[in-house]
Amino acid sequence: MINKIALAGCGNVGTALLEILHEKRTVLEDTYGFKFEVTLVTDLMKGTVANPDGLDLGELLRCIREDRSFAKLPQKNGTFAELLDISQATMLAEATPTDRVTGEPGLTHLRTALTKGVSVTTTNKGPISLAYEELKELAKANGAKIRCEGTVMSGTPLIEMVVRGMAGCTVQKIEGILNGTTNFMLTRMEEGKTYAEALEEAQAKGYAEADPSGDVEGWDAAVKVSIMSEIFFGKKIDTSDIERIGITEITPEKIKSAKDAGFKVKLIAGIEDSADGFRAYVVPKDIPFSHPLATINEATNAITITTDYLGDVTLTGPGAGRKETGQALLTDLIAMA
Amino acid sequence: MINKIALAGCGNVGTALLEILHEKRTVLEDTYGFKFEVTLVTDLMKGTVANPDGLDLGELLRCIREDRSFAKLPQKNGTFAELLDISQATMLAEATPTDRVTGEPGLTHLRTALTKGVSVTTTNKGPISLAYEELKELAKANGAKIRCEGTVMSGTPLIEMVVRGMAGCTVQKIEGILNGTTNFMLTRMEEGKTYAEALEEAQAKGYAEADPSGDVEGWDAAVKVSIMSEIFFGKKIDTSDIERIGITEITPEKIKSAKDAGFKVKLIAGIEDSADGFRAYVVPKDIPFSHPLATINEATNAITITTDYLGDVTLTGPGAGRKETGQALLTDLIAMA
Repeated sequence: MINKIALAGCGNVGTALLEILHEKRTVLEDTYGFKFEVTLVTDLMKGTVANPDGLDLGELLRCIREDRSFAKLPQKNGTFAELLDISQATMLAEATPTDRVTGEPGLTHLRTALTKGVSVTTTNKGPISLAYEELKELAKANGAKIRCEGTVMSGTPLIEMVVRGMAGCTVQKIEGILNGTTNFMLTRMEEGKTYAEALEEAQAKGYAEADPSGDVEGWDAAVKVSIMSEIFFGKKIDTSDIERIGITEITPEKIKSAKDAGFKVKLIAGIEDSADGFRAYVVPKDIPFSHPLATINEATNAITITTDYLGDVTLTGPGAGRKETGQALLTDLIAMA
Repeated sequence: MINKIALAGCGNVGTALLEILHEKRTVLEDTYGFKFEVTLVTDLMKGTVANPDGLDLGELLRCIREDRSFAKLPQKNGTFAELLDISQATMLAEATPTDRVTGEPGLTHLRTALTKGVSVTTTNKGPISLAYEELKELAKANGAKIRCEGTVMSGTPLIEMVVRGMAGCTVQKIEGILNGTTNFMLTRMEEGKTYAEALEEAQAKGYAEADPSGDVEGWDAAVKVSIMSEIFFGKKIDTSDIERIGITEITPEKIKSAKDAGFKVKLIAGIEDSADGFRAYVVPKDIPFSHPLATINEATNAITITTDYLGDVTLTGPGAGRKETGQALLTDLIAMA
């Protein structure tokens, strides 16, 4: 059977997915038995192209490279539901930007696809944080699947590892560094840079956005905590209800005095579920040098998962990146086939 | 559908699996839709019990606790094939001890089950190292599945994470600490103990066997390298062809002088597959303090996987333990259901 893939959102991540699919077509078929065509690509800026028999990926990538748009190709119009029908898509890769308040446009894309029985994977944290349970029910009711590997730690396969790799274990606690931008900034500040200099360098590297509040105020990590709370602990918690302190009050002086006392300052995201209650947080913490999280520098992410049978398992890897996040979509597409 | 589980080998790991299944029956059904009965348990020392309608796990565990045997229960006799037929098993958990030269008795158990279309999971490194490709073909030909999460890093879900979580990536290199016993000994020797003292402590803790050669000569890690070579790189390499130096020549003096130069001595297992060729090894290496593997102490295992799309991903966790390895079997049973 040929999997017909629709892609909603063709920015850095969506484009990376197209590149990987184009590069690896033979390997995917030979190694994973994964046969596919991309039958719809729709992007607010680049335009909308569809063909139920499969689009020419080489041509799409050339258009992106040369024109940053599909303007030279015949455009399709219609609602997202109509576009899915035209494309005959069997799976949707959703890679529109995160809006943590409304979840749109991703939420509508996911609802529309699942209602039609089209399986979905998304890197968009908004809809998963806001409506995972509803979407999961919708998937179940329509015989479709929903996955979201790329919403936490990008392509580093945290969700697959915990949900399937630790199936049967009860997760008791998670604790980690889940925002690469702030960890990069803290690393620079350890080296003596000011907050402003560290932020400027993070922006120059493309880690931080022009408005950095999503990262430095801890919102990005908090959204991820809400996603993990639902998926790993079965508990829905609104992002705004998560105990959250960013790094905006951290100074090189604070970092220096922590260092003199044997600690590193890290922005730690965590969930604890014990007899003492349930706690979800994103807060700067003093971490002893000997603790594994103290060794995580630059934009790297790391998380320790504590379960009843496996003790502590720590996963460290990239937490962002276009190829990395595109790969997260691919992992999910293969798993849903 | 009720999954009928046969268990071959009921030592520490097999018993842990029975305990987990007994403890988690309700959770497994509610959370994973995994309904099961254990219909066969066969162990060289404890005896053989079978019932196609399901054995009483509470009673089995009581017998193990009180008598270390099933002698008080009605025994079943027959070849392993006959026992599988009697039990009507649909999946086999194989947890007999590793024989890296013959693979027996595990190899016969796995072949017999797969030939009957019974899916298998094993913690036994012997058969997987010796005959993975044959067993995989046998599984395919008979519509069965084969998994072996527990053969490397115990229940820490390395294989699931790489094979499914990184599906689509090309693995270029792996490097890690995959033998807990020797890492425990090296940690003790860093603290000033002699090789003999460190070995004695490892034996007292149950990490090292009376004949420690499998660990200290690097054989255990080499068998794991051969398994990963086949599963992650698609290349069969005999354990005896792996470049292998154990820790028998390591002295506290060598560790001290490495430390003075900024290094830790670690027994490193690795595979590299590049334009320069293919290399598989288990050798002591001087690791700089700043390297993530330098921070892995005691009996913990850790491995860094380098792929084309995800850069370096590091997984750290327990590499042994009865509950941990029992959990590996459970993860696989759920995945095969």
